[in-house]
Amino acid sequence: MIKVLVPWAPSAEAILPYLREIDANQWYTNNGPLVKRLEDRMGGVSVSSATLGLELAAPLVFRKKRVRIPAFTFVATATALIRAGFEPVLCDIGDDWALVDPDDESLAVCPFGASTEPGGMVDAAAAWGNQHYGARVFSLHATKALSGGEGGMICGLDEEQEARVRSLANFGLQPSTQFEHGVVTESGTNAKMSEYHAAVALASLDAWDETSAERKQLEAAYRERLEGWVEMQPRLNGVYTTFPVLVPQAERVAFDLASKGIETRRWYTPTLERHPAFAHLEREGALANCRAMNEQLLCLPYHLHMSESDVDQVCEVLKWAMNRSVTTPTCSRPITRTASQCTVDQPRA
Amino acid sequence: MIKVLVPWAPSAEAILPYLREIDANQWYTNNGPLVKRLEDRMGGVSVSSATLGLELAAPLVFRKKRVRIPAFTFVATATALIRAGFEPVLCDIGDDWALVDPDDESLAVCPFGASTEPGGMVDAAAAWGNQHYGARVFSLHATKALSGGEGGMICGLDEEQEARVRSLANFGLQPSTQFEHGVVTESGTNAKMSEYHAAVALASLDAWDETSAERKQLEAAYRERLEGWVEMQPRLNGVYTTFPVLVPQAERVAFDLASKGIETRRWYTPTLERHPAFAHLEREGALANCRAMNEQLLCLPYHLHMSESDVDQVCEVLKWAMNRSVTTPTCSRPITRTASQCTVDQPRA
Repeated sequence: MIKVLVPWAPSAEAILPYLREIDANQWYTNNGPLVKRLEDRMGGVSVSSATLGLELAAPLVFRKKRVRIPAFTFVATATALIRAGFEPVLCDIGDDWALVDPDDESLAVCPFGASTEPGGMVDAAAAWGNQHYGARVFSLHATKALSGGEGGMICGLDEEQEARVRSLANFGLQPSTQFEHGVVTESGTNAKMSEYHAAVALASLDAWDETSAERKQLEAAYRERLEGWVEMQPRLNGVYTTFPVLVPQAERVAFDLASKGIETRRWYTPTLERHPAFAHLEREGALANCRAMNEQLLCLPYHLHMSESDVDQVCEVLKWAMNRSVTTPTCSRPITRTASQCTVDQPRA
Repeated sequence: MIKVLVPWAPSAEAILPYLREIDANQWYTNNGPLVKRLEDRMGGVSVSSATLGLELAAPLVFRKKRVRIPAFTFVATATALIRAGFEPVLCDIGDDWALVDPDDESLAVCPFGASTEPGGMVDAAAAWGNQHYGARVFSLHATKALSGGEGGMICGLDEEQEARVRSLANFGLQPSTQFEHGVVTESGTNAKMSEYHAAVALASLDAWDETSAERKQLEAAYRERLEGWVEMQPRLNGVYTTFPVLVPQAERVAFDLASKGIETRRWYTPTLERHPAFAHLEREGALANCRAMNEQLLCLPYHLHMSESDVDQVCEVLKWAMNRSVTTPTCSRPITRTASQCTVDQPRA
């Protein structure tokens, strides 16, 4: 069995020196020294998760109640806005798999971590190392390239927004005096990162050069083997945690791969408009490219526990699966600029 | 300097065996094996914090928009309800320092961890080991007797409520299939406890017999020394993390103690109606006992790094501070059943 995702995190031994620091500091959460060091190294404001980060930062960025988002994203993009009192407008994606025409009242998304035009703010959950501008919220969730177990980091806010997010993440309390808690001027929640998650994230950062190089090698290995066979996500030379491809009849192909011991996932599908909780949300247009994604998206195994021969095996089985069946070999998907690539008349391995 | 609070948490070495389990499991968050073990041992549903727990559980319990809470509590009691779309009604406390007349549409609070009538639900943040009934939300924050660094545990829900909270803590996703994420039927957030926080909490549970016995000794040492001098919180034989007393001119006494190297805090003050963000909330009555708390509450140093001679020193300095100054030695506070105790005509040490 080749798993689709095995999260990478620093070992207990790599975390231990940080835990000993926590012991010495007797400081376990509430903006402790490790959290501050992590914020310095990442250049942002830490939060307990990217989702909470989006919830707290969105009201500081967006002026209108309606906020455009791509329907092709992880569900948290929508839930965070809803929880923060906004009405997401579900929009289509373009050739780059990202929100079409992001403007100031758009929450763009880095699709599978690929950099994007940020709009008013960008859900950069999977994009640490890739998205370098815009008000952007990164995730440190275990499945991400840079893992804190859980956690988030908001970058690109101005000084006043940073101060407000810090307060909102601490219930909305203003700084304390020696004798009293500060008062709440704007009601918030608890979205603080603990020293323990900061410890894990710091140990992950220590290993970043190595792990990001390995991820890039994995990406290159897949691209070399699948060039001309499937459509792959347009990506810069970044650091990714999944390898999505477009194939006709993706669900059938996924079953075929599973029958050969290869696990896949169809992340970001079903697209948001197909979730009962989001069915009532306003839509912009017919979401044609999102519909194509629902039919064709497939994420292949991609993690640091894979060998190059695992990649060989995945690609061979994928090609086998694509060549069998398919009674109607035409491609109706409108997303790609090179639509002819997605017929089944593929070169054989 | 005697600090008012030094959080206790298990040492790096006590946590290490759990971290090695995490390594072996390659499972870092999303309802992993350590979280499940912690839930089994504590008998509840884990969440990333008590605040998020209250935010997610309140809508499953309360039917009306107005929810009664005591104004004498930590601010999160109010912020959680506000974030969940409720309108807190600020109410007074009784002789037991807890919400007066809790009913089904009340969120009661365990004041400083003391058990209470639960109302519809109880904010039992500091009450692990003390509050044994009601739909109750415990905190595993670093300052609590049972620490996970951050974290929360909701106990006393029925099976359907538990399932809904689990889903809401995972964005509202229904369980996944092999190939696809489940769909969102009710929009949630990320309130999952990570394996790392579960590791810390499990190591804290392992030490619970010892740490809770020490906390009880500390309580007894204070009560013995301060009996007849100050009014102390009515408490059962539980496990506490702070030692609050009522003294006339608490703020002045706090300054006097600080001048002698003894740190205090006036937790739960100012009471909620005095926070700008809560000033507009409906109030039930004049909150006379809350007003008394604002004048008289003082939390003395109380933590597991204190010796019995530290307790001696705190009590001696407290008695000194109470005996100096006080030009108007009368007590206007209506809260106590034994109001005569809170004049300055105290026995000398």
